[in-house]
Amino acid sequence: MRTQVGIIGAGPAGLLLSHLLHLRGISSVVLEKRSRDHVERRVRAGVLEQGTVDTLIEAGVGERMSREGLPHHGIELRYGGAGHRIAFEKLVPGRSITVYGQQEVVKDLIAARLSAGGDVRFEVEDVAVHGLESEPWLTFGGERLDCDVIAGCDGFHGVSRPAIPEGVLEVFEREYPFAWLGILARVPPSSEELIYTRTERGFALHSMRSPTVSRFYLQVPADARVEQWPDERIWAELKARLESVPGFTLATGEIMEKGVTPMRSFVAEPMQYGRLYLAGDAAHIVPPTGAKGLNLAVADVRVLTEALAAYFERGSTDLLDGYSAACLKRVWRAQHFSWWMTTLLHTFEEDDAYGRRLQLSYLDYVTSSQTAATTLAENYVGLPWAP
Amino acid sequence: MRTQVGIIGAGPAGLLLSHLLHLRGISSVVLEKRSRDHVERRVRAGVLEQGTVDTLIEAGVGERMSREGLPHHGIELRYGGAGHRIAFEKLVPGRSITVYGQQEVVKDLIAARLSAGGDVRFEVEDVAVHGLESEPWLTFGGERLDCDVIAGCDGFHGVSRPAIPEGVLEVFEREYPFAWLGILARVPPSSEELIYTRTERGFALHSMRSPTVSRFYLQVPADARVEQWPDERIWAELKARLESVPGFTLATGEIMEKGVTPMRSFVAEPMQYGRLYLAGDAAHIVPPTGAKGLNLAVADVRVLTEALAAYFERGSTDLLDGYSAACLKRVWRAQHFSWWMTTLLHTFEEDDAYGRRLQLSYLDYVTSSQTAATTLAENYVGLPWAP
Repeated sequence: MRTQVGIIGAGPAGLLLSHLLHLRGISSVVLEKRSRDHVERRVRAGVLEQGTVDTLIEAGVGERMSREGLPHHGIELRYGGAGHRIAFEKLVPGRSITVYGQQEVVKDLIAARLSAGGDVRFEVEDVAVHGLESEPWLTFGGERLDCDVIAGCDGFHGVSRPAIPEGVLEVFEREYPFAWLGILARVPPSSEELIYTRTERGFALHSMRSPTVSRFYLQVPADARVEQWPDERIWAELKARLESVPGFTLATGEIMEKGVTPMRSFVAEPMQYGRLYLAGDAAHIVPPTGAKGLNLAVADVRVLTEALAAYFERGSTDLLDGYSAACLKRVWRAQHFSWWMTTLLHTFEEDDAYGRRLQLSYLDYVTSSQTAATTLAENYVGLPWAP
Repeated sequence: MRTQVGIIGAGPAGLLLSHLLHLRGISSVVLEKRSRDHVERRVRAGVLEQGTVDTLIEAGVGERMSREGLPHHGIELRYGGAGHRIAFEKLVPGRSITVYGQQEVVKDLIAARLSAGGDVRFEVEDVAVHGLESEPWLTFGGERLDCDVIAGCDGFHGVSRPAIPEGVLEVFEREYPFAWLGILARVPPSSEELIYTRTERGFALHSMRSPTVSRFYLQVPADARVEQWPDERIWAELKARLESVPGFTLATGEIMEKGVTPMRSFVAEPMQYGRLYLAGDAAHIVPPTGAKGLNLAVADVRVLTEALAAYFERGSTDLLDGYSAACLKRVWRAQHFSWWMTTLLHTFEEDDAYGRRLQLSYLDYVTSSQTAATTLAENYVGLPWAP
């Protein structure tokens, strides 16, 4: 069996890459170890940058997103007993975000690939990569797939990155002394926009997935376990943090899902080795505060698509050779922004009184200087694609 | 002996306060433990914000500054082998900075006070404050000065702040794991504008005091001593850091003065107790990276002058009661900016590889996004006086 691009992982990165390559007449096979049902239900990110929305629409897979996605023109920063709106329509005119769950993007991409006759294989076992230095191939479940190029889109815990020989990658990493407890609840959102809340009890985020489903996050200790968080405790803590503004009442409802998300910053450089190219979480992780993970994956895939098109259409390897460098500038901007949003809004136990005042002073600046608010807004909606 | 305002300290804060009060018809006596010669020669800050310049001109003490001061419309950030100009004229039109040594401001203020018959006493011994809760008085060298109000303008190591009873002040503090070696040299500046340089060897600042005198700073270990830095070593290190851009050559010359400046962030709240009001370094210290110390002192003095005028002219204590709160917003903005500039440009031994990349990513952002560059520019030239 042979294809031009062997893609490991049917998350948003792998599926979008397969779809964009198809539009350029380049063949691919996607290998996914989980079931279709699993990847279509996996609750992950939900905030799409303007550029991500544009990419999906241009690629012809934005129809349902345009109908069901919730366009947002601002977010609220809440701290010190008051809320402050970061107004995208004023600060970054013409740019906004769209709230649309990652699993919905995945569903749309799978549907598009299958209806175009794409080869997406689920529940594939023992995927392994070989021959990265010259003529690569993939093995899985006893089969062999020869490829010109392999794309590692299999996330942080995937097989792609570890397949790169030791000593090649430089790893940059930071862990945070807290995690997020993510909650999906069947209750209409209590606010039309996202609310990022900093309290002395810790951070909380009020988000949503649809007009009837809310999404919440609570800062919890890094070693927190879901069993420590019965529903009543979750609602009490959400209320204690989010109702820090007079007049705001949090609506409660049935909790459909809850889980602990670790907070980590991670970059492996370069994002390529021989004929293997990493995209998305396989190469880099950001804490979810800035909502950048999915958007970075889409940006990587855009760059990789152009590079592969230049290679297969003209035999040019320039863009492929420069793939990692082209991605990393954006990756590090998002790394910094995600670290910045995280340190701005979370409480750090080790922080001294001076550090807490610095944080509040920074929040006062961001919410009172139009320039400072614009730095948040321009990063949040996404910086232009071309660096 | 009696006066309306007893002022401790003949630095820029105390002298300017005495002068501004005089313009409002309010009497004061300034007590300074050092000699006039000492305070007129003490080399300190040299970058005046737009608002500071405006204040001195409005107060009629800006004549020599307007003639001899060097107006600057930008600074350079140098890192990674390239220089990047932060262009004030484009980012914050109409606002700039003026390079004019603090000791020159002090000379101008002393001359103005003395020519108006002001009472400024130098080499005054054993200054002490009394009766802060009701009818305050100062003692010094066996004399007693009764006052309505006392202004503590005697710097970080002065007697004013320690005179406030224990438990009243909340102190916020941060120390940095490095110091600055300051160098004054008889050599024309090698650049017309200030150059803030980040290198793997540490931070360096190229500044100036006049067309024939340059001012330099080198990041050195916190425990560095001047004897460890003979002139040849200083020039070699300045060259190693500042000549990190192709084509730039540092001119060398006679070193007239050198000294180690500790780096500290400090705020004591509130900035007042009873009839004592603290201004400038007596209440807060910033690391010198953002050039904010002198400018904050001038801002405090402006607020205090208005409050004292309201008190003596109309008997109103509202502004005096709100003095600390009115100042602290600006103080914390400057605290944050100074911390930000410091962490952006210095090397931290304890920093991991991830931290170094974050720093470079932030520098890339500041030098490529007009919005981010404007946040630096608007803080550097000084935010508007009224918060």
